[in-house]
Amino acid sequence: MSSDGSYERDRAYIGTRITADGRDGYPVEPGRYRLIIARACPWANRSAIVRRLMGLEGVLSMGIAGPLHDERSWLFHLDPGGRDPVLGIEGLREAFLRREPGYSRGVTVPAIVDVPTGRVVTNDFEQVTLDLGSEWAAHQRDGAPELYPERWRDEIDDVAGAIYRDVNNGVYQCGFAGSQRAYDAAYRRLWERLDWLEARLEGRRYLVGDTVTEADVRLFPTLVRFDAVYHGHFKCNRQKLTELPALWAYARDLFQTPGFGDTIDFAQIKAHYYVVHDAINPTGVVPLGPDPSGWLTPHGREELGGRPFGDGTPPGPPPPSERVPPLGSAAIEG
Amino acid sequence: MSSDGSYERDRAYIGTRITADGRDGYPVEPGRYRLIIARACPWANRSAIVRRLMGLEGVLSMGIAGPLHDERSWLFHLDPGGRDPVLGIEGLREAFLRREPGYSRGVTVPAIVDVPTGRVVTNDFEQVTLDLGSEWAAHQRDGAPELYPERWRDEIDDVAGAIYRDVNNGVYQCGFAGSQRAYDAAYRRLWERLDWLEARLEGRRYLVGDTVTEADVRLFPTLVRFDAVYHGHFKCNRQKLTELPALWAYARDLFQTPGFGDTIDFAQIKAHYYVVHDAINPTGVVPLGPDPSGWLTPHGREELGGRPFGDGTPPGPPPPSERVPPLGSAAIEG
Repeated sequence: MSSDGSYERDRAYIGTRITADGRDGYPVEPGRYRLIIARACPWANRSAIVRRLMGLEGVLSMGIAGPLHDERSWLFHLDPGGRDPVLGIEGLREAFLRREPGYSRGVTVPAIVDVPTGRVVTNDFEQVTLDLGSEWAAHQRDGAPELYPERWRDEIDDVAGAIYRDVNNGVYQCGFAGSQRAYDAAYRRLWERLDWLEARLEGRRYLVGDTVTEADVRLFPTLVRFDAVYHGHFKCNRQKLTELPALWAYARDLFQTPGFGDTIDFAQIKAHYYVVHDAINPTGVVPLGPDPSGWLTPHGREELGGRPFGDGTPPGPPPPSERVPPLGSAAIEG
Repeated sequence: MSSDGSYERDRAYIGTRITADGRDGYPVEPGRYRLIIARACPWANRSAIVRRLMGLEGVLSMGIAGPLHDERSWLFHLDPGGRDPVLGIEGLREAFLRREPGYSRGVTVPAIVDVPTGRVVTNDFEQVTLDLGSEWAAHQRDGAPELYPERWRDEIDDVAGAIYRDVNNGVYQCGFAGSQRAYDAAYRRLWERLDWLEARLEGRRYLVGDTVTEADVRLFPTLVRFDAVYHGHFKCNRQKLTELPALWAYARDLFQTPGFGDTIDFAQIKAHYYVVHDAINPTGVVPLGPDPSGWLTPHGREELGGRPFGDGTPPGPPPPSERVPPLGSAAIEG
């Protein structure tokens, strides 16, 4: 928290990269690493989506921290015995401490852990998706799309940079603002950017080019959480996403695209935000709304043209162990 | 708070009545009494509406407590010098203490104060509107509507009783629930009742009969606050009011009816709930949303027939000193 009450994200990530050539000491290798996510977390959601789109489920296993925290941060409380079945740890902090004794920065997801040593290799969420899309090329499925094509990189970086500042992180700056002034500024930036995105998406199916790219992967996790948590809990309440016609249709289009909606668990999302942030929701009561059934309604975006996977194909269904609960059950039981 | 975490409203009101025959010692008398409301409070909103509909502005003056509280409850912090200009008091508690030394129950609005003695006569919100509509008949304007007609009384009592339990008080039971279980139960009762009201209002313009009655006066203050505070702050978030077609059109119809919308100040409503309830919003940040501009859009309810004021007429505009700020300014500046 800065002195004027605005929220500043700690971005001191462990930036070691897993690469094809292994130049940081961690070469791409099937079965060697484990991606740790939480269904709740929008930053981790990006990695889960790209792993699905690239078809890396068979070569990079995935552990799922539960929605609740204790003072140790993310925990494997949903797993049998409360331990990740591969790493054998209760809390993700253990893997950070193995990497760096005395580690005291954020214990965040996504994190990729080197299974043989139990050490976190990286938790740099922006680099992780780029590397899954490029460095892991030799192990991607046939038909994997290109999410960061050379000719669109500058535009993707521009759009994604604005989205990060005003939307992905902007909703947190609204919700964690320590003063009315800091909140007001974040709210105005957020809504100016959402209005800009609404206008941009009225006439085009995807943010950049005519296929799904990194830019879409980065916007979707915030949009899909918008009405469930950011609108009320973070006070981002000028409108609901469902009241912004182009953005709502765009978000539904992606939700219904294999690899996106099949990573979403609304019950875990709501439980995390409303229970863990006790400074803004001291009662810990988790709202039963909103009604999520609209996510499966027709979006009509095919008329705008575009090919979601370019020259590629959609991924198949997720492995049974990674299936999320059906939409209705999640929201009704909260 | 009861042992299962459900919220129970303290209903120990001072029930002395101001009547035409003065049987409780307080006869109806022009200029003698002062109605104290707060723009924020839905229970007081009823009295402000009925006073407008009955045209009692010239015979029963109105004092307006501000949205913020200290440990003394409602205060006249919006008035010059922080004192009610007629009663000369800073906090409404003083008028309760003059009535009853050692008074320790709720200091609530609406309250009617006997100006010569400075004592609260009554804070029984249900009886106050009924008495303004009947006991004050000799001083009502020409064309004042009949809000509690003999032939509809049983139906009004039935409908208003269900609305009180599940909606007016139900939103508080959602927001002040001390356990998930108590919240879940209140949420389900609220939404069952709203679904019932939605169905009832699809084919009829008003709740009972074909004119505005006490039943409408009692439902409106909760509906008009729904998206601004109850949806997010009280977690009543299955849908926004704007997503319930009949109820939203019904609420806009009333908002645009003289005597209803001209009592509403969204900035005061939001400031009160979000600042005073620090147990559920510890930061005290007041949301800038929602966008209230929809309240003035056409509602199309004239097609259902009905005559808002029956054989009567609409009231004229409020006195200049009681005008609320225009819709846009209120919500944008929060």
